[in-house]
Amino acid sequence: MTSMLQIALDAMGGDSAPVPEVEGALMAARDLGVKVLLAGRPERLQVALQEAGWTTEPIEILPASEVVAMDETATRAVRTKRDSSLRVGLEALKQGRAVGFVSAGNTGAVVAAATLWLGTIPGIARPALATVLPTLNGRGTLLLDIGANADCKPAMLDQFAVMGATYAERILGVARPQVGLLSIGEESVKGNELTRETHALLRQHAAHRPFDFVGNVEGKDVYAGVVDVIVCDGFTGNVVLKVSEGLATTLLTLLQQAFGSAAGARDALSGLQQVRARFDYAEYGGAPLLGIRQPVIIGHGRSTPQAICNAIRVARDAHLRHLNHQIAADPAVVAMLQTPHRNGATASIPSLA
Amino acid sequence: MTSMLQIALDAMGGDSAPVPEVEGALMAARDLGVKVLLAGRPERLQVALQEAGWTTEPIEILPASEVVAMDETATRAVRTKRDSSLRVGLEALKQGRAVGFVSAGNTGAVVAAATLWLGTIPGIARPALATVLPTLNGRGTLLLDIGANADCKPAMLDQFAVMGATYAERILGVARPQVGLLSIGEESVKGNELTRETHALLRQHAAHRPFDFVGNVEGKDVYAGVVDVIVCDGFTGNVVLKVSEGLATTLLTLLQQAFGSAAGARDALSGLQQVRARFDYAEYGGAPLLGIRQPVIIGHGRSTPQAICNAIRVARDAHLRHLNHQIAADPAVVAMLQTPHRNGATASIPSLA
Repeated sequence: MTSMLQIALDAMGGDSAPVPEVEGALMAARDLGVKVLLAGRPERLQVALQEAGWTTEPIEILPASEVVAMDETATRAVRTKRDSSLRVGLEALKQGRAVGFVSAGNTGAVVAAATLWLGTIPGIARPALATVLPTLNGRGTLLLDIGANADCKPAMLDQFAVMGATYAERILGVARPQVGLLSIGEESVKGNELTRETHALLRQHAAHRPFDFVGNVEGKDVYAGVVDVIVCDGFTGNVVLKVSEGLATTLLTLLQQAFGSAAGARDALSGLQQVRARFDYAEYGGAPLLGIRQPVIIGHGRSTPQAICNAIRVARDAHLRHLNHQIAADPAVVAMLQTPHRNGATASIPSLA
Repeated sequence: MTSMLQIALDAMGGDSAPVPEVEGALMAARDLGVKVLLAGRPERLQVALQEAGWTTEPIEILPASEVVAMDETATRAVRTKRDSSLRVGLEALKQGRAVGFVSAGNTGAVVAAATLWLGTIPGIARPALATVLPTLNGRGTLLLDIGANADCKPAMLDQFAVMGATYAERILGVARPQVGLLSIGEESVKGNELTRETHALLRQHAAHRPFDFVGNVEGKDVYAGVVDVIVCDGFTGNVVLKVSEGLATTLLTLLQQAFGSAAGARDALSGLQQVRARFDYAEYGGAPLLGIRQPVIIGHGRSTPQAICNAIRVARDAHLRHLNHQIAADPAVVAMLQTPHRNGATASIPSLA
C-alpha cells in the first residue's frame, strides 16, 4: 500500500459535485490500482462516500473549506480562495503527495491555478488543453487547444504542435505523428492572420521536428482522422468541441425519434447508444493540460462517474509514461528555452479573465 | 414571358461544373417561375443542356470565356479574369437584367467580386455569408458570418447582427428575432478579445434595435435552436459549418455500419437518410451574402442540382421580399451611415487574400 500511486481529485468541481466525483473516485480506487485523494468539504464528502457504498477502497479526504464556482472569474478564484478544493488538490500534487490532479470544475480557474502554482515546463509559454476526438477510421485525433487560451499568438500554436505531437507519440503510441493546423482552406494563404502566420512558423521549423507538419486541415477533416494532431487557438477548439457535442445530441435525438416507431427499433437504438457514448465528451472525458510541470487533467463539468474514473486513468498514465518529462526533454522545447520567445509567446501566466 | 424574373447563375463555379449547375437551372426554370441566365462557356453549356434534356425551359446562355478556379486567390481572380463566368453573371445583375446571382464557386472570389463590382449597402462595411442551420426544435438558426471575413472587428460583428436579424424577420418570418453572440461561455467576460468587445457593443446598442440581443451563446446551442440568429467571425463560422459537415458524415456512417446487420435495418437507414439530408450543406445549400446591394447567393462547391435550384429560390425570394432594400432601410443601418465607423469596420473591400 505504501507505494500505491496517489491521484488528487477536486471533489467539489463539477456541476453535480461531489456525487459523480466520489463515485468516480471509488471506481478508480477499485479498478486502477490508485489511491484517490478527495479535496473538498469533509462532512459533505463523508456523506457522499457513505451513500456511494464506500468500504475499504483506498480513498483519503483532503479537507478544503472553499469551492470555486463555475461562473467565477479565474482571477478572483485564484486570488481570494486560498482554501479551495482546487488549491488544496493542486498543493498535494506540488508537494509530491499525489502524482496527478483531476478537476471537472471551472476550466479557466484550473488553468490559471495550475499555471500560477505549478508553473509551466521551462520553454513553454502557455499550457494547452487537449482531447482525443473519435474518428471514422478509429485512430482518433488529438485536438488542442480546446479552451485554455481564448486568444493565441503564432508562437503559442507552434508550441501546442510540439506538445501535441509528444502526447500522440508517448501516450497514444503514434510513431511519427502527422500534425495539421485547423484553418478554412487547405492552401497556406487561406485562413485568418493567426493561421497564416502560424502556418509559416510551423513550416519554418518542420525540418528539425520529430513530427510531420502536413499543413492546413479543415473542419471537415476533424472527424475523418486524416491527421494525428490538430492545432488551433482555444476559442476555436472550444467551439469545435461544443458544436460537436450539440450536433451529436441533436442528430441522435432526431434519429431516436425517427426510429421510435420503426421495426427493429430496439437494435437501432442500441447501435445509436454505442455511437453516442463514443462522441459524448461527458462520458469519455479527461483532457490533459499539456505544458504544466506535473499532470493536470480537466474533465467536463457534466462528467459522469465513468468520466471521472477515465480522467484519473489519464492522470495515472501521464505519470507512468513520463509525459511531462518527455515534453520538457523534447529537443524542440529545449530549443525554445534557449532562444528568446517571439511572436508573443512570452512565458507568463495567462490573462486571468 | 417578358416579365419573368431572371436569375444569373455562374454555371462554371462548382467542383463538378457545369453539370449540377445546368441540371439545377433546369429544375428552377421548371418549378420556380424564373428564367435562368447561365454564365459560362457556350459550347460546354450547350452540350450539358442537351445531355440534361433541355427542351423549352426558360434558359439563356451568357457567354463567358474564363473560369475562376477553386484554389485561385481572390485578388488574382478579380483583377485578371475580366471575362469569367463570375464576372459576366454579376454584370447581368448589376445591369438589371437579372434580379439575383448564384455561384457555387470560389467563395473568396465571389465575395471580393460582389463587394468590388456591386458594392455594399451604404453604412455596411463588409458583407457576411449566412446560412440557416437545422435545429432540434425545427425553427432553424441563422449563422453568420460563415466565411466571407476570416478576420473581423467588433463593429463588423455588430453589423452582422443587424443584417442577420433583418434576414430572420423578412425571409424567415420571425417577429422579433433573438440574436446571440457565439462565444465559449455564457458570461459577457467569457470569450476572446473579439467577442468581449463585440458583446459590449451589442449590449450598448440593444435598446435601439428591432431585435433582442440575448448575450453569448455556446457551441452546444447552435443546433439546439435557442436563438434565431448567431453571430461570429467568418473563420469560426466556417469551422463550425465544416466540422458539422464532417461530424454528421462520420456519425451517420458509423450508424450505417452499426445498422447494416441489424433487424429492421432498412427502416433505420431510411430514417438516417432523411436526417442526413437535413444536415447536408451540399443538399440544402444557398447562403445569402448579406450586405451587398443586390441578392448574391453562394452555394457549396459540391452543390447538387437540388442545391443549385434551392439557391436560385433563395435569390428569387430575396428579391421578392426586398431583402436588400430592407437591410438598407433598417434604422440601425441608416444610423451606421450617419455616424463614423469605429472599431475597424471601415467601408472598404475585404483584404483579397
